Amino acid sequence: MENFTFYNPTKVFFGKNTISRIGKEIHKAGIQRILLVSGGGSTKTNGVYEQVIKSLMEFGIDWVEYWGVKPNPVLSHTLKGIELARENELEAVLAVGGGSVIDEAKSIAAGFYLDNLWDAFEKKVQVELALPVYTVLTLSGTGSEMDLYAVITNEDEKKKWNIGADCLYPRISIIDPSVQMSLPWNQTVNGAIDAMSHIMENYFMGSDEEATLGINESLMRTIIKSIDSLHLNGKDYNARANLAWSATLALNGISGVAMRGGDWACHRIEHAISAMHPGVAHGAGLGVIFPAWLKFVTEYNPSLFDRWSNNVWDSATTEEAIVNMKNKFHSWNAPVSLSELGINESEINNIASNSMRFGVVGSLKVLTHNDIVDILKIAF
Amino acid sequence: MENFTFYNPTKVFFGKNTISRIGKEIHKAGIQRILLVSGGGSTKTNGVYEQVIKSLMEFGIDWVEYWGVKPNPVLSHTLKGIELARENELEAVLAVGGGSVIDEAKSIAAGFYLDNLWDAFEKKVQVELALPVYTVLTLSGTGSEMDLYAVITNEDEKKKWNIGADCLYPRISIIDPSVQMSLPWNQTVNGAIDAMSHIMENYFMGSDEEATLGINESLMRTIIKSIDSLHLNGKDYNARANLAWSATLALNGISGVAMRGGDWACHRIEHAISAMHPGVAHGAGLGVIFPAWLKFVTEYNPSLFDRWSNNVWDSATTEEAIVNMKNKFHSWNAPVSLSELGINESEINNIASNSMRFGVVGSLKVLTHNDIVDILKIAF
Repeated sequence: MENFTFYNPTKVFFGKNTISRIGKEIHKAGIQRILLVSGGGSTKTNGVYEQVIKSLMEFGIDWVEYWGVKPNPVLSHTLKGIELARENELEAVLAVGGGSVIDEAKSIAAGFYLDNLWDAFEKKVQVELALPVYTVLTLSGTGSEMDLYAVITNEDEKKKWNIGADCLYPRISIIDPSVQMSLPWNQTVNGAIDAMSHIMENYFMGSDEEATLGINESLMRTIIKSIDSLHLNGKDYNARANLAWSATLALNGISGVAMRGGDWACHRIEHAISAMHPGVAHGAGLGVIFPAWLKFVTEYNPSLFDRWSNNVWDSATTEEAIVNMKNKFHSWNAPVSLSELGINESEINNIASNSMRFGVVGSLKVLTHNDIVDILKIAF
Repeated sequence: MENFTFYNPTKVFFGKNTISRIGKEIHKAGIQRILLVSGGGSTKTNGVYEQVIKSLMEFGIDWVEYWGVKPNPVLSHTLKGIELARENELEAVLAVGGGSVIDEAKSIAAGFYLDNLWDAFEKKVQVELALPVYTVLTLSGTGSEMDLYAVITNEDEKKKWNIGADCLYPRISIIDPSVQMSLPWNQTVNGAIDAMSHIMENYFMGSDEEATLGINESLMRTIIKSIDSLHLNGKDYNARANLAWSATLALNGISGVAMRGGDWACHRIEHAISAMHPGVAHGAGLGVIFPAWLKFVTEYNPSLFDRWSNNVWDSATTEEAIVNMKNKFHSWNAPVSLSELGINESEINNIASNSMRFGVVGSLKVLTHNDIVDILKIAF
């Protein structure tokens, strides 16, 4: 087993009626004025906003609201959020929403102390300091509620890149799965596929790390089972809860233990796609790319692919497992081809080039431009 | 799924040659003078002490040594450690050893700020403050390297009780599995059974918490597989590493997520036994009590016992699974009956009484005095 470091100081309050806790936790930290970051307004219709505000008022926390975070959060909106936080001398950032809202909130928290936030995404400067980040999660998938990363799209340069730093672990994350019952089906599925992808990015780098491999297989099975249950009954609280916790664990460090940093080629390719097509949901893109990548790289870790096929998909061969996976995604009404995402075959070259704009792509198999083109062709 | 809170801020450095990191980490925290707590001297023969000292010297950390922690650490020795820390105005406690050493180190760290440490074990006062705790682990099993608990025996009162507080999470724990290669076989096995027990104490409270149940089954399988491998070759680093990480996860909170606080009857009974027989290793005691408890309570959660039998022991019935478990422990040369632990049948009544001296025993089935007597009789 490879050496590793494990560290994750985020405190999670999980379950029904936990949102009312947020004001108390912020108050306990001695914080009085916060930036409340949210998206397009769904938190007002599902009752989450109201619960948050009530709790903030109860504990005398002042807040400034900043709405309009997009599903693929963009740099320009983030920079305005930083200005707002500075002008009002705010002390913390509270994200109320899904992974995009949390990612933008983290970026605002880091940018508060930086002259040029994008320099951090370009790795020209290190993020050393950030405003404390709090989150109230409304869509499980990205894992951002319990990790140290944030992904932002620079619209002008069509780059969807990330930052990561210990100071970006949320101090407190509140996960009430019951608020996810009103989500549109495709958002639930995209979140689940995103979470499964986080596990797979790590898993396929494994060999004999029995502890991590076993946990990851178990998490993948739980996600599949939960979505199958939710497909029958979207109000199944227990399935929502199991899905939500699995999605959090998928990227909180546990799934990556001793996995050599993971592969992450599919994420790089998907980021290139959604940087060019902001309408493509991250999970939907991953659901299309992953089966193609799996097919392309099977030969580079055949015994582990066999194990995955048996233990996750009850399949005798990897070929069969990939078919089962695509059928499963299809049964959930998720897209399984690039054309279903509205992508034209003529764009393949550009996507491949854009995937490679930030260094080496992949680790199990370091992908060349032609490899990515081949994977994208399989995904067609 | 039940609501839960998850929080674990311990930073773990895991793998070969990680002990050299300890001085740097203590130095980074601005700490200059520490109490180094250790056991009977095995850390001097296996090279761990030397690695620790070298690292402390490299980073200019002063230390006072405190040796002699017993396998079931006792209050009197703990109190002398507190005096030593106070006299020398030390700023942190570094445990170098197994779970007993870590538990005593945590107790010293908490006692440093208390008028009467045992009051905290009696739950008369709360532990709110402690010296920072650092650990270098040399025996996997108790999970103390990444949890908030400490168990100490009050020899005079024959009570083996615990404290728990957020401030007792180690700041840093270093786990180098290669230093465990020289352990006596029975210590390796006792540690593994202790870790399995931590998982089982949580697991059998479950119902449909798929994420936690799946992870726990996977961890139990990994522990069994690792010990089987180590039985063939005690120098199998990968098996040592998988065992070590599974043992850490067994009690770092993950295995208890939504498990209603766990059952813990077997631990209570075992603590009563080893409080009366300090020569009985904790893991050995648990290996004897657990199969008997399983048999006694099967009817209280039959579908979960079926699931456990199938998924962990490839057994069609719970009866068969319990037999397989006892045979497995036996094949590892672990005791499977109270008589093998040197306990006399005439003591059963006393053990049952002592088990009940600190309130309700068990949760899946709240055990009466007679229930405990019955379980102990099965264990004979």
